[in-house]
Amino acid sequence: MNYLAKILVFPREGVLDTQGKAVGKALGRIGFSSVKDVKIGKYIQVNLEAKDEKEAETAAEEMCRELLVNDLVEDHSIRIERIVL
Amino acid sequence: MNYLAKILVFPREGVLDTQGKAVGKALGRIGFSSVKDVKIGKYIQVNLEAKDEKEAETAAEEMCRELLVNDLVEDHSIRIERIVL
Repeated sequence: MNYLAKILVFPREGVLDTQGKAVGKALGRIGFSSVKDVKIGKYIQVNLEAKDEKEAETAAEEMCRELLVNDLVEDHSIRIERIVL
Repeated sequence: MNYLAKILVFPREGVLDTQGKAVGKALGRIGFSSVKDVKIGKYIQVNLEAKDEKEAETAAEEMCRELLVNDLVEDHSIRIERIVL
């Protein structure tokens, strides 16, 4: 079966998010004074084949550990969705 | 009140996603043969002040239009969450 692993990767709490800070300042400068803080991360969507949701999630976790996420400075969350054609 | 605008920005259908293609190939090379396709986008989390959810959403939409999203090649979705302290 086909699954979509929707993976969010974002800077860990306490790690300086320079991109987020820059965008936050830029938003303030163009008039969005209500903005207090911005964090920027990656959104990775993996279309994969697996026999069930559990297997898809295990595979996605492994991908994060081996390639997609730098655990030292990044945190991640995974949501699995079945693709129904 | 404080709200979190959780914004996903990803390449439009039909626009070449070079980053996604590269990561998809890399995953295949290190053994994840079940991967069929990868798409990569941005995850932007804006902490903002607004009087209600509607106002927060309108502000987030404006931010996307004016700075965060390039509508020609990118698509986006917004989810608003109230921050309860």
